[in-house]
Amino acid sequence: MSGNTFGTLFSVTNFGESHGPAIGCVIDGCPPGMPLTEADIQHDLDRRRPGTSRHVTQRNEPDAVEILSGVYEGKTTGTPIALLIRNTDQRSKDYANIVESFRPGHADYTYWHKYGIRDPRGGGRSSARLTAPTVAAGAVAKLWLKAQFGTEFRACMTQLGELAIPFEDWSHVRHNPFFAPVADVQAYEDYMDALRKAGDSCGARIRVQASGMPIGLGQPLYDKLDADIAYAMMGLNAVKGVEIGAGFASVAQRGTVHGDSLTPEGFASNHAGGVLGGISTGQDLEVSIAIKPTSSILSPRESIDIHGQSTQVITKGRHDPCVGIRAAPIAEALLALVVMDHALRHRAQCGDVHQGVPPIRSSLL
Amino acid sequence: MSGNTFGTLFSVTNFGESHGPAIGCVIDGCPPGMPLTEADIQHDLDRRRPGTSRHVTQRNEPDAVEILSGVYEGKTTGTPIALLIRNTDQRSKDYANIVESFRPGHADYTYWHKYGIRDPRGGGRSSARLTAPTVAAGAVAKLWLKAQFGTEFRACMTQLGELAIPFEDWSHVRHNPFFAPVADVQAYEDYMDALRKAGDSCGARIRVQASGMPIGLGQPLYDKLDADIAYAMMGLNAVKGVEIGAGFASVAQRGTVHGDSLTPEGFASNHAGGVLGGISTGQDLEVSIAIKPTSSILSPRESIDIHGQSTQVITKGRHDPCVGIRAAPIAEALLALVVMDHALRHRAQCGDVHQGVPPIRSSLL
Amino acid sequence: MSGNTFGTLFSVTNFGESHGPAIGCVIDGCPPGMPLTEADIQHDLDRRRPGTSRHVTQRNEPDAVEILSGVYEGKTTGTPIALLIRNTDQRSKDYANIVESFRPGHADYTYWHKYGIRDPRGGGRSSARLTAPTVAAGAVAKLWLKAQFGTEFRACMTQLGELAIPFEDWSHVRHNPFFAPVADVQAYEDYMDALRKAGDSCGARIRVQASGMPIGLGQPLYDKLDADIAYAMMGLNAVKGVEIGAGFASVAQRGTVHGDSLTPEGFASNHAGGVLGGISTGQDLEVSIAIKPTSSILSPRESIDIHGQSTQVITKGRHDPCVGIRAAPIAEALLALVVMDHALRHRAQCGDVHQGVPPIRSSLL
Amino acid sequence: MSGNTFGTLFSVTNFGESHGPAIGCVIDGCPPGMPLTEADIQHDLDRRRPGTSRHVTQRNEPDAVEILSGVYEGKTTGTPIALLIRNTDQRSKDYANIVESFRPGHADYTYWHKYGIRDPRGGGRSSARLTAPTVAAGAVAKLWLKAQFGTEFRACMTQLGELAIPFEDWSHVRHNPFFAPVADVQAYEDYMDALRKAGDSCGARIRVQASGMPIGLGQPLYDKLDADIAYAMMGLNAVKGVEIGAGFASVAQRGTVHGDSLTPEGFASNHAGGVLGGISTGQDLEVSIAIKPTSSILSPRESIDIHGQSTQVITKGRHDPCVGIRAAPIAEALLALVVMDHALRHRAQCGDVHQGVPPIRSSLL
Repeated sequence: MSGNTFGTLFSVTNFGESHGPAIGCVIDGCPPGMPLTEADIQHDLDRRRPGTSRHVTQRNEPDAVEILSGVYEGKTTGTPIALLIRNTDQRSKDYANIVESFRPGHADYTYWHKYGIRDPRGGGRSSARLTAPTVAAGAVAKLWLKAQFGTEFRACMTQLGELAIPFEDWSHVRHNPFFAPVADVQAYEDYMDALRKAGDSCGARIRVQASGMPIGLGQPLYDKLDADIAYAMMGLNAVKGVEIGAGFASVAQRGTVHGDSLTPEGFASNHAGGVLGGISTGQDLEVSIAIKPTSSILSPRESIDIHGQSTQVITKGRHDPCVGIRAAPIAEALLALVVMDHALRHRAQCGDVHQGVPPIRSSLL
Repeated sequence: MSGNTFGTLFSVTNFGESHGPAIGCVIDGCPPGMPLTEADIQHDLDRRRPGTSRHVTQRNEPDAVEILSGVYEGKTTGTPIALLIRNTDQRSKDYANIVESFRPGHADYTYWHKYGIRDPRGGGRSSARLTAPTVAAGAVAKLWLKAQFGTEFRACMTQLGELAIPFEDWSHVRHNPFFAPVADVQAYEDYMDALRKAGDSCGARIRVQASGMPIGLGQPLYDKLDADIAYAMMGLNAVKGVEIGAGFASVAQRGTVHGDSLTPEGFASNHAGGVLGGISTGQDLEVSIAIKPTSSILSPRESIDIHGQSTQVITKGRHDPCVGIRAAPIAEALLALVVMDHALRHRAQCGDVHQGVPPIRSSLL
Repeated sequence: MSGNTFGTLFSVTNFGESHGPAIGCVIDGCPPGMPLTEADIQHDLDRRRPGTSRHVTQRNEPDAVEILSGVYEGKTTGTPIALLIRNTDQRSKDYANIVESFRPGHADYTYWHKYGIRDPRGGGRSSARLTAPTVAAGAVAKLWLKAQFGTEFRACMTQLGELAIPFEDWSHVRHNPFFAPVADVQAYEDYMDALRKAGDSCGARIRVQASGMPIGLGQPLYDKLDADIAYAMMGLNAVKGVEIGAGFASVAQRGTVHGDSLTPEGFASNHAGGVLGGISTGQDLEVSIAIKPTSSILSPRESIDIHGQSTQVITKGRHDPCVGIRAAPIAEALLALVVMDHALRHRAQCGDVHQGVPPIRSSLL
Repeated sequence: MSGNTFGTLFSVTNFGESHGPAIGCVIDGCPPGMPLTEADIQHDLDRRRPGTSRHVTQRNEPDAVEILSGVYEGKTTGTPIALLIRNTDQRSKDYANIVESFRPGHADYTYWHKYGIRDPRGGGRSSARLTAPTVAAGAVAKLWLKAQFGTEFRACMTQLGELAIPFEDWSHVRHNPFFAPVADVQAYEDYMDALRKAGDSCGARIRVQASGMPIGLGQPLYDKLDADIAYAMMGLNAVKGVEIGAGFASVAQRGTVHGDSLTPEGFASNHAGGVLGGISTGQDLEVSIAIKPTSSILSPRESIDIHGQSTQVITKGRHDPCVGIRAAPIAEALLALVVMDHALRHRAQCGDVHQGVPPIRSSLL
């Protein structure tokens, strides 16, 4: 109820601070009998890991995960899976100057007023570092969904600051540090270099997709599948907008265009983004999110201190000039957690999960 | 867990179908001692009511609410408040032709595959009629928030189909059927008349705002205030996109621009939309939503029946050619429910609710 | 979260006051496709109904239930089932004298201090009348469990005041007003007549049983099946004690006696009461509850008023001299609700429900 | 939802297995600003610790707790408090002989059928070792309740096997290994020595009490304070019965006796056990629990193996011949967790917590 648990039946309780001794999570509700090793989880953690290119924070965290419980002889037992990641490369002195002042665009001000106390080291609990346990839990969900239904998750960057990124092919995503679906990323390298030199930051737009979706996931009236996707995505640090399917473009569409026709071979289009009435259609889930520019920048900003007096803030520390760059694997994990939870919720009430009836032609948008 | 309850501490359990005997909800967790009458709730229901202009469905429902419990001698007692609205103007025969076929853009297909059974009369449970109990519950939340903190909620239309609607003044909203913040709505009247004549429908964009917000509402890590707002809004029928503050525009913003500076007199701007790190800043909450064109249109659409065979669907019945028109009071209610729930969640853990420290200058975007 | 919802996946949200316009509940999470009519529910309501013998309250309520939603053409649709029972025989004037004083043994004192406001008519929300919606919801759960697994629920009285009631046969229970498993209930008739004449009340002990139980229901660590049974039973008005299996007698048992041996034909005994490690064994669930004497008695009692001054309270109104008499069908319903919820929770995580492997010999205690 | 989280607003998510690398919990919802160190928690862990007398298991675990998060500069921050306890003295080879057979009275059989997989080492997840994180979390709750309201918790043994233990004084409890409220425990030492020699085990009865209780805690209708106490206690390993106040004795009481009179100086008695209508009266909470004899005994028992064949089981390993002996601090912790959660739930809805109005005379039973 205090907001650190994600999901209901496949629930992830996240703990830790950016510069505390450790971060981690407890997954409750994982089905028993699934093969699971630390390596299965490490793969996605490595995709999210800081320090892997010059365009992201240079904090060097191995993010090595330890499974503390819930796995016996290489298989899940149905009991809670606790995952532990020790913090190793904290440099808390970078934050000495902001103990008593509020960084614009950051949670400093709101944590201070909410709790009356705040851990300023690396942003404490509000740091994007806390997405690591989410990614770890998402990796477990992905494994199960892949094995059960063949469902797969992927994400890519579709805009970097002012630069729209065309979609060429999913295969390019893993070969560049931007998760961009294009072969040539020189323009983005140059853009980021200039930005870093200017001491500034930029936003990004990320597309997230689930394919091989079962039909029927999602609980009307309030806990619609798309409602929970929006909750998951908007809850990710720095996200300011979420779209499903046609998103904001649907405002200017006509009903005769937007509504996806059905044919015996499947849907003829996917403006809905894979959800009708809050329930999955079996088409690809198509989600798009807007990520704001990083608030931690070297340029001096006007602010106030805890006494309400004017002050200037320059954020040192090691930061991502575009937090959107590392967002792709996190967004995938969040989408996987939503689908996983709804798969179990569906099974509880309806007892089985449908796939591919009638045949689904999962057209892209 | 089956998705028909909204909120945790101020929870609303919604029931009913479009053409069943009644719809309604049970509110649990309302603070005791608050004056409450049916008239307090009826006001917002009337703003949402069908049949009030030629641009919306001509179904004529009085939507008279009856308080069944939780109020004694005009005051809430702290026990569940059950609200009942009888359906009176069902015309189920309009739906005879879609019992065995799926209307494109509708929940028919997904309900059928999820549950194996579906109430086709008026869309059954998936009908936007079920937003009436949400509006009723929102009215109760608004009363308490107004009395406690002076918080107020309002919404207006900012785009109708292709037509952007400029913002003139909130005072205009109540004087036209579009909830448009402009004095002259002739262009929108004409637009809708043409659309109806064409048997087509269009989308809309709605802006929702809360002013007089307390500081500190919202639970990190997952149940952020903006995450729960996104959940609430995306869960509203036909919504395909949600923005907080600068929304998708923040992608192209620089960090030096986006991050709202703080001054001793308050924030200098509100790109954040009133939320930092998932917690309210005390500034106005600024939310924008995209509503897709109504799927129920007179133009014939390609579809399939429950046997997977091709068919054509023409949706008769009485429908809103732009469901966005009546969305403003619903979106207000949803925002009020989110804020209410977080106010109680905050009080549970932190024991008090802050306001206006330091002074908040709630700039618009 | 405010305590008026029972269960998680098969959840029952209860509303109403003893003398308000109506009582009822909303069931969320019922599996779709199950035949359900009002008559199915009415049967159990009639077993609990007041006014059926001279030993219970003479308030005459038909307790006619109306299904408001969730059922289409005689089958559940998977959407919320709202049940409404209008109150018809309120006599609120009986309560005029206790508006400002606290009846000993009643919730008057605690509601007053908790909420600062209290509906005194018939005990308001704290009345045992609110068990009627619980019984109605339990009837729905029973139907599903019977159809799915053959699980059945029954309860009987095993002690009335000082009088222990021997167990003869379940078949007797329906033939006497005490739910006593004996053929001759003259002693209990006489006992109650004397008690009523004395203006006093007595307690009772009730045994509740589920047979035909699936194996594997119950969630360790905290939400054990027996933990949730204890929660359900202790939450019933006037209950002061709960036992599972051997109960308090197990304190003086040796381990060599208590632990139920397993044989290829099943368990050799059932001291466990059908639960090991919080999970059902497939044996009969055996539960026993202690019900305190009715607090509403004609004999004058010392008390205080809302100003803290001494006063005497005589409770008029129409009360059960032994609330335990009507407790049997309520306890059955509560046990059914617990088993139902755990059946769905099990299915969510583990995907199937086991029965009878290896063969279960469900010995009684 | 999978049963490993206790509480709603002050929630404890427990993880670990008896012989896994670690056990622990995540506390979510702790109010911010409370001083907290590892020593505060260690004290109660040490009271529960194995290996402290010859009458309990000789497994030697230091149970040293590490705070991983949620505390900054010695104070709680309002973010999750993760507590980690490494297992150090596992001797899993003791369990080799029960990998394929079910120990009578144990969870082996039910885990196997529920999950299809089971960690047999030390009972895995079903081990009473998992009460350690509960005790740790309870210590945090106790600190806050003591500081806020002066509420205090204590427990003692009132029966050991057939031997009733008279109540002399609370002060004796800490001076003997039985948590017995008497000066001379020689009889219990002898009893246990004989039992151990016989390779058998016995049960116990424990009394738990909270004093300095606020008035008004508890949520009707279902989440009554006593309902949640019963849930907590029955969920503790080996508990088979729970009583509040007069408990099962109330069955034979008359209403004129049972109902506690109120006087201007407070209640005249406490048959209710501190709860009326599910809400705390401000009197002492009085709870009594029945603990079954340990199932792990050296005497050979009839059982079956996973193939359904007859076998004999002798449980080696290091076990408590009376698990009730170490139950006192655990039962205290559980009661503290229930009261803590309800204190926050009350504050959420009602905004303040009452104490001592009118003066409460907390009589013992």
